[in-house]
Amino acid sequence: MSQLPTIGHLIDGKTVHSGTRSQPIYNPATGQIEKTLLLADAATLEQAIASAQAAFPAWRNTPPLKRARVMSNLKVLLEQHADELCALITAEHGKVLSDALGELQRGIENVEYASYAPELLKGEHSKNVGPSIDSWSEFQPLGVTAGITPFNFPAMVPLWMWPMAVACGNTFILKPSERDPSSTLRIAELALQAGLPPGVLNVVNGDKEAVDALLHDPRVKAVSFVGSTPIAEYIYSEGCKHGKRVQALGGAKNHAVVMPDADIANAVNALMGAAYGSCGERCMAIPLVVAVGDATADAVIAGLKVEIAKMKVGPGTAPGVDMGPLVTKPHFEKVKAYVDQGVKEGATLVVDGRRLKVPEHEDGYYLGPCLFDNVKPGMVTYQEEIFGPVLGVVRVKTLQEAMDMIDAHEYGNGTCIFTRDGEAARYFTDHIQVGMVGVNVPLPVPVAYHSFGGWKRSLFGDLHAYGPDAMRFYTKRKTITQRWPSAGVREGAVFSFPSSR
Amino acid sequence: MSQLPTIGHLIDGKTVHSGTRSQPIYNPATGQIEKTLLLADAATLEQAIASAQAAFPAWRNTPPLKRARVMSNLKVLLEQHADELCALITAEHGKVLSDALGELQRGIENVEYASYAPELLKGEHSKNVGPSIDSWSEFQPLGVTAGITPFNFPAMVPLWMWPMAVACGNTFILKPSERDPSSTLRIAELALQAGLPPGVLNVVNGDKEAVDALLHDPRVKAVSFVGSTPIAEYIYSEGCKHGKRVQALGGAKNHAVVMPDADIANAVNALMGAAYGSCGERCMAIPLVVAVGDATADAVIAGLKVEIAKMKVGPGTAPGVDMGPLVTKPHFEKVKAYVDQGVKEGATLVVDGRRLKVPEHEDGYYLGPCLFDNVKPGMVTYQEEIFGPVLGVVRVKTLQEAMDMIDAHEYGNGTCIFTRDGEAARYFTDHIQVGMVGVNVPLPVPVAYHSFGGWKRSLFGDLHAYGPDAMRFYTKRKTITQRWPSAGVREGAVFSFPSSR
Amino acid sequence: MSQLPTIGHLIDGKTVHSGTRSQPIYNPATGQIEKTLLLADAATLEQAIASAQAAFPAWRNTPPLKRARVMSNLKVLLEQHADELCALITAEHGKVLSDALGELQRGIENVEYASYAPELLKGEHSKNVGPSIDSWSEFQPLGVTAGITPFNFPAMVPLWMWPMAVACGNTFILKPSERDPSSTLRIAELALQAGLPPGVLNVVNGDKEAVDALLHDPRVKAVSFVGSTPIAEYIYSEGCKHGKRVQALGGAKNHAVVMPDADIANAVNALMGAAYGSCGERCMAIPLVVAVGDATADAVIAGLKVEIAKMKVGPGTAPGVDMGPLVTKPHFEKVKAYVDQGVKEGATLVVDGRRLKVPEHEDGYYLGPCLFDNVKPGMVTYQEEIFGPVLGVVRVKTLQEAMDMIDAHEYGNGTCIFTRDGEAARYFTDHIQVGMVGVNVPLPVPVAYHSFGGWKRSLFGDLHAYGPDAMRFYTKRKTITQRWPSAGVREGAVFSFPSSR
Amino acid sequence: MSQLPTIGHLIDGKTVHSGTRSQPIYNPATGQIEKTLLLADAATLEQAIASAQAAFPAWRNTPPLKRARVMSNLKVLLEQHADELCALITAEHGKVLSDALGELQRGIENVEYASYAPELLKGEHSKNVGPSIDSWSEFQPLGVTAGITPFNFPAMVPLWMWPMAVACGNTFILKPSERDPSSTLRIAELALQAGLPPGVLNVVNGDKEAVDALLHDPRVKAVSFVGSTPIAEYIYSEGCKHGKRVQALGGAKNHAVVMPDADIANAVNALMGAAYGSCGERCMAIPLVVAVGDATADAVIAGLKVEIAKMKVGPGTAPGVDMGPLVTKPHFEKVKAYVDQGVKEGATLVVDGRRLKVPEHEDGYYLGPCLFDNVKPGMVTYQEEIFGPVLGVVRVKTLQEAMDMIDAHEYGNGTCIFTRDGEAARYFTDHIQVGMVGVNVPLPVPVAYHSFGGWKRSLFGDLHAYGPDAMRFYTKRKTITQRWPSAGVREGAVFSFPSSR
Repeated sequence: MSQLPTIGHLIDGKTVHSGTRSQPIYNPATGQIEKTLLLADAATLEQAIASAQAAFPAWRNTPPLKRARVMSNLKVLLEQHADELCALITAEHGKVLSDALGELQRGIENVEYASYAPELLKGEHSKNVGPSIDSWSEFQPLGVTAGITPFNFPAMVPLWMWPMAVACGNTFILKPSERDPSSTLRIAELALQAGLPPGVLNVVNGDKEAVDALLHDPRVKAVSFVGSTPIAEYIYSEGCKHGKRVQALGGAKNHAVVMPDADIANAVNALMGAAYGSCGERCMAIPLVVAVGDATADAVIAGLKVEIAKMKVGPGTAPGVDMGPLVTKPHFEKVKAYVDQGVKEGATLVVDGRRLKVPEHEDGYYLGPCLFDNVKPGMVTYQEEIFGPVLGVVRVKTLQEAMDMIDAHEYGNGTCIFTRDGEAARYFTDHIQVGMVGVNVPLPVPVAYHSFGGWKRSLFGDLHAYGPDAMRFYTKRKTITQRWPSAGVREGAVFSFPSSR
Repeated sequence: MSQLPTIGHLIDGKTVHSGTRSQPIYNPATGQIEKTLLLADAATLEQAIASAQAAFPAWRNTPPLKRARVMSNLKVLLEQHADELCALITAEHGKVLSDALGELQRGIENVEYASYAPELLKGEHSKNVGPSIDSWSEFQPLGVTAGITPFNFPAMVPLWMWPMAVACGNTFILKPSERDPSSTLRIAELALQAGLPPGVLNVVNGDKEAVDALLHDPRVKAVSFVGSTPIAEYIYSEGCKHGKRVQALGGAKNHAVVMPDADIANAVNALMGAAYGSCGERCMAIPLVVAVGDATADAVIAGLKVEIAKMKVGPGTAPGVDMGPLVTKPHFEKVKAYVDQGVKEGATLVVDGRRLKVPEHEDGYYLGPCLFDNVKPGMVTYQEEIFGPVLGVVRVKTLQEAMDMIDAHEYGNGTCIFTRDGEAARYFTDHIQVGMVGVNVPLPVPVAYHSFGGWKRSLFGDLHAYGPDAMRFYTKRKTITQRWPSAGVREGAVFSFPSSR
Repeated sequence: MSQLPTIGHLIDGKTVHSGTRSQPIYNPATGQIEKTLLLADAATLEQAIASAQAAFPAWRNTPPLKRARVMSNLKVLLEQHADELCALITAEHGKVLSDALGELQRGIENVEYASYAPELLKGEHSKNVGPSIDSWSEFQPLGVTAGITPFNFPAMVPLWMWPMAVACGNTFILKPSERDPSSTLRIAELALQAGLPPGVLNVVNGDKEAVDALLHDPRVKAVSFVGSTPIAEYIYSEGCKHGKRVQALGGAKNHAVVMPDADIANAVNALMGAAYGSCGERCMAIPLVVAVGDATADAVIAGLKVEIAKMKVGPGTAPGVDMGPLVTKPHFEKVKAYVDQGVKEGATLVVDGRRLKVPEHEDGYYLGPCLFDNVKPGMVTYQEEIFGPVLGVVRVKTLQEAMDMIDAHEYGNGTCIFTRDGEAARYFTDHIQVGMVGVNVPLPVPVAYHSFGGWKRSLFGDLHAYGPDAMRFYTKRKTITQRWPSAGVREGAVFSFPSSR
Repeated sequence: MSQLPTIGHLIDGKTVHSGTRSQPIYNPATGQIEKTLLLADAATLEQAIASAQAAFPAWRNTPPLKRARVMSNLKVLLEQHADELCALITAEHGKVLSDALGELQRGIENVEYASYAPELLKGEHSKNVGPSIDSWSEFQPLGVTAGITPFNFPAMVPLWMWPMAVACGNTFILKPSERDPSSTLRIAELALQAGLPPGVLNVVNGDKEAVDALLHDPRVKAVSFVGSTPIAEYIYSEGCKHGKRVQALGGAKNHAVVMPDADIANAVNALMGAAYGSCGERCMAIPLVVAVGDATADAVIAGLKVEIAKMKVGPGTAPGVDMGPLVTKPHFEKVKAYVDQGVKEGATLVVDGRRLKVPEHEDGYYLGPCLFDNVKPGMVTYQEEIFGPVLGVVRVKTLQEAMDMIDAHEYGNGTCIFTRDGEAARYFTDHIQVGMVGVNVPLPVPVAYHSFGGWKRSLFGDLHAYGPDAMRFYTKRKTITQRWPSAGVREGAVFSFPSSR
């Protein structure tokens, strides 16, 4: 293992190889160890926090337009380095290259939004709140802020966070996933090249030790997190206990409702990508279809079977592949066990992906697409987030029944409805207890100029990720009330006062 | 005590006398017990939460304009009942009537702001986020929300919270201070009269038992708190641990900087009210003057001595009185002990209010205005929030020294600067680590259409109280992404279906 | 005629009887002359403009919150005087009392919106547009502004204009319709009672002489107009030529599209009110139904015939009456001539209202509801704004044909579509060249917190009436860029500089 | 002249050499004719308008994010081609290269702002304006829009207009100045390269014939103009008469007030650039200093004399040159005549630049910096816009006298005050009747994310140029009100129809 490339941290504009512990990084398409990742210890964290703290005063005073231009420059660099970045993503995460490009593109959109900083940071100005008294609000940066991001979008999710944080004038410490940090680090290097001063963005690799150091250090003013709900809850509770502002995004189990009047062919196409894209390892994936009426269910399942049969599974770098491997061996085992469990619970396994073998890649973590019919709310396969290529169909009689079921679920991240009917869409979008809702859009991930956030146990905090909410999350409001005494230079009084002192 | 009036709770539109424990309410001007307050037990809380939960669905669906009109109606009622409400405030809190009226007026302004709900609740609409795909954000209410408020502004601080909460479509449970709940309750009754449906606003009297019940109940989605920092920290940590959104406003120690070029007569006048108004029992009071230059300090102290000598202390209901009693006997003892401590620490007690006696009100909790010179950062009297009529002068050489001192203090609620100089004001307001800043305005409480919030350990959470931030705090964002399939009624494909009906 | 009440002007807070010319005011329900209206001459106008000019400086400096409260007070007064105001409207305009109340209610909503002024007038504040340079925008009032309003909504349309104008800090001269000015004047008196200072709102009765005086006087900075398109065009061209900002709303010919999948019963009900309410004398009335498919047309016509047969026509004050008289004798003759013309042109007159007689009101200007089938684009009855109780049905084959027809029409005020289909609605609302669009809403008059305005030759100018656009129309932007020189009192330099001068 | 390069038009993405008339383009540094400019005739205009009209539907339907990205791309191209563009500007306008770069930089900032389109175009969405009725506003493009721009900023002023216009979805016809169109045209070519589809931006060279064609063609929906006040007034009046929306920016005579407490050295430095930069050919130049107090005036004049003596005048391309030639020979003669006139009127010519000769450039249009003392309101040199390197000092006794004088002037474009005093600044910025105000900032040109516009006869129209106002100017508001009938697929009523398909 000593000959493998070693990945360190990016602190104060320089690569730092510190930390006494390390762990291997695998290529999920082959099952081979490819790199060694250094895990930050307390001293590394201290170095990163101190760098971010030191960089803050000058960065805070840099005009927003100049900060924004670093984002414009970064956008251009990300487009230029897209192939390189996608290769890094696929090598460590496993997703197919086109999917990596989609992720990167979404991340670039967040960089674009951060480049609107001069507009976004405008405060509110009120003339004459009282006679000759004015008042205005400014949105000032917090200081050192931090982000902790998951394996499933190593390029995009970090770009949800730090571009807006730094565009608002903060400095940032990013702890990416220890599974696939290379694209994250490369993007941070490009940010330096784009003009970000050293120390404004620091990337620290690590595990719980690093996370806790961030949560407990009083210099860190805010924490953004994306990951599973139990960890999100811990981050929120622990971060808030230490007086920070926290936004912690957790798990999901997104339901797609298909109405009898839906265009079934369209819906089936949409569901294929939403269920099996990136192996279902997306918090906005659709693992559950709620079909209203048995005829609808039958038609949807028939359509899915046809489409699944056409799917090609293999290494993410191979041409024409639709789905790559799962991210790690343990995760592969876990997802397979969920499928076993579904069968045991009585769901009907219509398509079984468990026996899939990818030739010449026998050690890769491949699982074929799985499709269940007759999934029911009581089942583990219904309740828990599987994060794998497993789609379940639930049969209900009415839209109301579908909605009650969705509202009863622990999570409330995303959902969608397939229909032609204006009223069904309006009733669903109005009342459903879910934060992001699609109408004939399977993955209703808000565009970068709106904000991303689930409800219920899918998000802890009051402000959503990226978009307008991010500006508010990464700034604190300062309100100034100003009145000038009269009898001064205006009336000529100043002419005399110098002599009198 | 059995003949005293008993104060209960307001639940589901009705007065409820429940709870097995009680405590007396005193008139601080006389030291007499006047009323008995029932303290809510778990069953009372359950009743209130259930009522708020039941009222939510219909209230949420009520058009914002209709909800706003309840606020317009309430505004009129509050103006009509101003004398009655001020009498209730003064009888339990002790502040002078004109000050009670000032508080009520500020509260009314928050009601006015809540009546702008149709404008404030506008979401963002984006056409063509993709080809023929639209997306928009809605700000939906949370459900049951709660507020816990302090004794010092029994009318105003509750009106910071619940009007915006209910105007946004939430229902609310208010736990006011157990020292002076009568005006709070009366306002809630007026809200019913103004058209608020039963259950939308419930007022529950109680102590830590009630607070914890609110913090732990999963039906309560958000908590707003104003009080001392240790409790604020507990509320924030405990509320967040239970998955709620929390904004918790804590203590303060506001510094007023007086520059050599200030209009000293103006500054002295402003400081008198800011230091001694309402006995200094305000989180925006000025207990510390930082004079830049000894000449400035001498001039300020000379001016203050003259003005203090003119002050009239007595029962808040007596005509011409400038300052009433402190709120309770224990608080009176505590403030007096702070003055003793200041003397011991070496501050110069220029004016000593400890020996004041108010004739015919010997049992009232009166303390005369106290003025210290030579207060220094190390002292307890500098560091802690006294919440009494005690003003200390700190002497510094430069503005920078003043600012460093302010920034080093634990609290960051409010501050102000007295100067004529544009650059001094701009430098101070830009860099000072305090949330609300006045320029020649001693109490820079933001107007109702801006938001109220301190920095550092004066506020826990990311959104400030009332104003624009309150709209965001009391709503959750829902983002909808919508696309309509073509080949429908527009192209004529649906022409056949009418015949089937 | 000398014994009839005489109506003058309201100038500088007082009723003024000036002007040498006059004209009678009729009750359209009886055809009797009831009052005499004085018409302003140049001297009257001069008095009004001078008053408005004199009132401006103090009103401009009044804090927006205080100005807003006059609006809150007025809202309460309008609610209290609703019966009186509706009686005045009906006596001079003829519409039924419930319709007058609807108009008044809409007007009150505009007053409510104007009471949000402190929020609406917030400017944009940018910190650090350059190093230590700040910039912000203020929205300052224009000075003297003016409004010229039509007969059809004597209460509502003036309330679209002057409340926002004065809430923004302007003073205002209103020239209402000379047919029915009494409710307009009474509301202006209530505004005085609500606290509006004399001179801030002046009402001048008159005709073209008064209009031209307003258009040509350089002290008048802005003109809002609602009326017919030829006059709107004149006002826009003439006002702009004299350097003013102008918004001039003109005529309309609003089409309602009924799709084959619409709920026909619903649509018919909606169309009845939209076509015949207030005799069709509304710029948002629906005089044209475009039925997609003959089956749709037949069903709509069948439904309309049934409903028309139930309609009760009579004096607006009589209980249970659905439709009152037309506003004047000449207008009655003109509308009747349009019906004759329609018959001549070849449209099928399905219901003929021309022979209607209302017992005991033989001299009133009553015309029964008329319904045409087979109306076609070439016809005068299709092309021109009739402003009477005449509804025409146009038959088309597709939605696209309906839309092309609508887009080809000179006017683009309002339109609507009846459908259940999300895509039809989206396609229609996106592409139609009309400013206000309803989906299953027949009269899509925007609520007071949005803005009102048509497209094409229905509106001249770039900002719409009331709502957010009105704030921008009634203010001019001032942008301040500010930088403070250093080396002043902050660094202590000020101590020395006096001696150097 | 036949061998000179010929400049044509850019229509539909191609260079077009049409038009029968032409005129020469001079290099003002040498007085030589360098190029021939073709002037558009009616047929050329028709071609341009038809191209813009044809390009509109597809461009309008392009998602705003895609349109915005063309602006991002253009920004990069403008930075890459900065030297080339500045050389073009200097060769035709005469200004020094560093000044050309400053102009270009400002223009680039407008392109950046236009790239925020997805944020800027957000409409307002209101849920439940009535029970289950929603309403929202969209900002839709107008169609074909046009801009007419002056010689003094051939790169910047066009970039104030068309980037926002096209980012909002319009197509555009630009008629640049016939004196220096080459940089304007080159930028338009770069826009094509950046991805702007052919026909979206067309550049037509011409004179009044072209202008009138734009003003009279009904397909042109909006006109933006920058130039002199008489032409602005003509454009506004004529454009409005033809039913268009128009914003027409005219002349200026900007006063700088210097208070006795100002930092005189700072003020003098600032005034030098503001008065003589670009030969004073800027609508935001400072041709008038109003000194409060004779001591102030004397100090300012003394400082200016020293600085003027250091100035280097010569060809804009020569290194170290501070000021280049005037734009044309006739303009040179006109400015010189203004100086003669000032002397005749009795102003004191402190520095006389009329005899300046630049060696080896004897035919260039060079005028040295001129400084007048004792300028007074009655004089022509005070009243009229000279647009040359002529600075006049007016002496007043008080700030109020200065402000009354400024307010009495016909123009109200920009102004500034030099002071340290907060109250003087606030009083001045609040009350002065000028649209753009600087505090210690001599040229308070708003940054690109605010808007540019003067008051009084400096701007005709209600919306300012670029920034937030430009979004509103280049879009029309459409308000949709939507309600969905119930009893559809949601309740199951539609269950039968699938069988019919």
